[in-house]
Amino acid sequence: MIKIVIKFGGTSLGSIEKIVAAAKIVKKEHQKGKKIIVVVSAMAGKTNELIKQAQSISKNFNKRELDVLLSSGEQVTSALMSGALNEIGVKTKSWMGWQVPILTEGEYNNSRITNMHVDKINKSLSNKFVAILPGFQGISKNGDVTTIGRGGSDATAVAVAKIFKTDHCDIYTDVEGVYSTDPKKFIKAKKINKISYEEMLEMSSLGAKVMQSSAVQTAMMYDIPLQVRSTFSGKEGTRIFSSENIDYSKIITGVTYSKDDAKITLLGVQDKPGVAADIFEPLGKNSINVDMVIQNISADGKETDLTFTTKRSDLTKTIKLIKEIKSDVKYKSISTDKKVAKISIIGAGMITTPGVTYKMFRALAKEKINILAISTSEIKISVIIKETNTNKAIKKLHSVFNLD
Amino acid sequence: MIKIVIKFGGTSLGSIEKIVAAAKIVKKEHQKGKKIIVVVSAMAGKTNELIKQAQSISKNFNKRELDVLLSSGEQVTSALMSGALNEIGVKTKSWMGWQVPILTEGEYNNSRITNMHVDKINKSLSNKFVAILPGFQGISKNGDVTTIGRGGSDATAVAVAKIFKTDHCDIYTDVEGVYSTDPKKFIKAKKINKISYEEMLEMSSLGAKVMQSSAVQTAMMYDIPLQVRSTFSGKEGTRIFSSENIDYSKIITGVTYSKDDAKITLLGVQDKPGVAADIFEPLGKNSINVDMVIQNISADGKETDLTFTTKRSDLTKTIKLIKEIKSDVKYKSISTDKKVAKISIIGAGMITTPGVTYKMFRALAKEKINILAISTSEIKISVIIKETNTNKAIKKLHSVFNLD
Repeated sequence: MIKIVIKFGGTSLGSIEKIVAAAKIVKKEHQKGKKIIVVVSAMAGKTNELIKQAQSISKNFNKRELDVLLSSGEQVTSALMSGALNEIGVKTKSWMGWQVPILTEGEYNNSRITNMHVDKINKSLSNKFVAILPGFQGISKNGDVTTIGRGGSDATAVAVAKIFKTDHCDIYTDVEGVYSTDPKKFIKAKKINKISYEEMLEMSSLGAKVMQSSAVQTAMMYDIPLQVRSTFSGKEGTRIFSSENIDYSKIITGVTYSKDDAKITLLGVQDKPGVAADIFEPLGKNSINVDMVIQNISADGKETDLTFTTKRSDLTKTIKLIKEIKSDVKYKSISTDKKVAKISIIGAGMITTPGVTYKMFRALAKEKINILAISTSEIKISVIIKETNTNKAIKKLHSVFNLD
Repeated sequence: MIKIVIKFGGTSLGSIEKIVAAAKIVKKEHQKGKKIIVVVSAMAGKTNELIKQAQSISKNFNKRELDVLLSSGEQVTSALMSGALNEIGVKTKSWMGWQVPILTEGEYNNSRITNMHVDKINKSLSNKFVAILPGFQGISKNGDVTTIGRGGSDATAVAVAKIFKTDHCDIYTDVEGVYSTDPKKFIKAKKINKISYEEMLEMSSLGAKVMQSSAVQTAMMYDIPLQVRSTFSGKEGTRIFSSENIDYSKIITGVTYSKDDAKITLLGVQDKPGVAADIFEPLGKNSINVDMVIQNISADGKETDLTFTTKRSDLTKTIKLIKEIKSDVKYKSISTDKKVAKISIIGAGMITTPGVTYKMFRALAKEKINILAISTSEIKISVIIKETNTNKAIKKLHSVFNLD
């Protein structure tokens, strides 16, 4: 008998009407004879509302108690989903984190799921009950409530799929799936039917945020087939598998962008071992995330230029820190540009197809778009360009790589 | 070391500001060196909001899941109270129903607390931690979440006081205490400083609803001193003890009234054994609560009149049921009056003071108020009068019995 996880995000459960609609999706699958474990998020906005209440009490709200507070959100949707399924004739039982139990390790507010007890729930599934589990929560070794970080319901769903050995894991959300580029801004964006875990990860971290990255990583590690699909349309979504199972007809799967980057260049940096570490250590210690780093080969063996990007919101702090280490690091000057965008093309197909880089650069050149920095990985090529060129670049690349 | 329970009702926790204010009350008591267990209700309105959500999903919402849903309300206030105490330097720990655990028996939505495990919490109290417990909830023998009926947080507070052997139990609420009559309508109403459990019970059931009756009963059974007081004023409230410990300077403690009664009289009822049972059995089976019953002694041994009162909202249903049994019961006619009120005087002092009844009737007569029915118990005398006479009667009795 097929066993599946169905996970609903907060927007899919944002009102009583939506919960009732989501319950109908579950019933339809249940009627096909599948064993079903439903994982629910809190209602859209609920977790933020609770965090706001906690913060209005204390800027430094007790972390243990924050988890007790936040876990109530999924408790409410679990009970409502269970009641809604019951109302339409489906036998159900909700299981709170401590009832399963869902065991976690790590800090409050940021734990990791390590295991779940499966026997009682498996027995309940065999008796044709649908099991409803709250996402995002579990308990620690000493019996405290824990949560697993924002967006953690995706991680719960994948962990359930892994531990209960389900056939697949369906993530129901408010989008139709993963798109070849941002569908809100580019009408030629196309829904991707199949994508590899690796590609999905590159898409996620670049802004096509349909699913939490660490949940995709877990699915990749244990080869759990995922599907991201809309709660509202009934259409097939995007299936996410191991790349071995995908037959690539297209070299490039998607074009993504981010517009909240800033570029910093240190000119005339001494070219000696340890310089890069001296520069990036204070940034790391101050929680500044450095994204792309490009260092040119030094022409004379003495000096070089170092370019990197950070979040635009971190720019002022970054410059301050860089100036503080000038006496140690020694560089001639700093040049910054905060009106930049990062454009990336992603595709597992590029591993076996030469000339993708060239084709990308040529396409941008044709549009007279200057490339300020380049970074490549096995399945992704990113370039930094002027922010004003963003739309032009995306349209061109989407077309050149046959995604329109 | 003194050990106490401090219970806050929903209106005392109705906003973040109120939770912070309530935490300050706890801190003040904690600084006196007391061991403190705080019991919290859900935020005012929260339980009704959750019930409304459940009912909009199903008129017959799954009872097990309703308890999972409703228990989230006290979970939220427990965590917020714990965080608020922490913020002002008090060490705290919240304990959910399953963490204590609070053991219950009985049906979902209407369980009874049977026991709690005390060791871990007692240890925590010895380490100067304040323990925060959610009211209204527990777990069943098979590990399901259960709730103990509306207003159940009072019952939790008294059960905690009993099981943890605390010195007393303070109920913080939105009123200053128990009054000699309704303070919202009669400016001469006075706060009662001391009252016996028995008097408090008569007051509660008659509408001076400051505390759940069954919680007062439990306190009476185990002789747990209670205090009902305001979260907002800082003033002493009403202490509730065993009547043995009260020195009565007044015969009457309070005057109460209810205006939602209706009076029904069956005229010419056959005076034979079993008639009363024949009449009241169908009412009981249809969940109609009969309050006062007065049967006159039959003059001729053949026929009598039977008067009783019910809730006004049950009047139509009651008449219908009475008409249905006419062929069995045989009575001449029905007379009803829904514009009646019940006025009661309550006082443990009346047990040892003769003439209270006479004094009450004489006072009403002086105001030309006709008494339609009378019912007496050891510490209470109730009369049914025309509703329009309510205020006049209360003012007169309040004055005659030296309560002004």
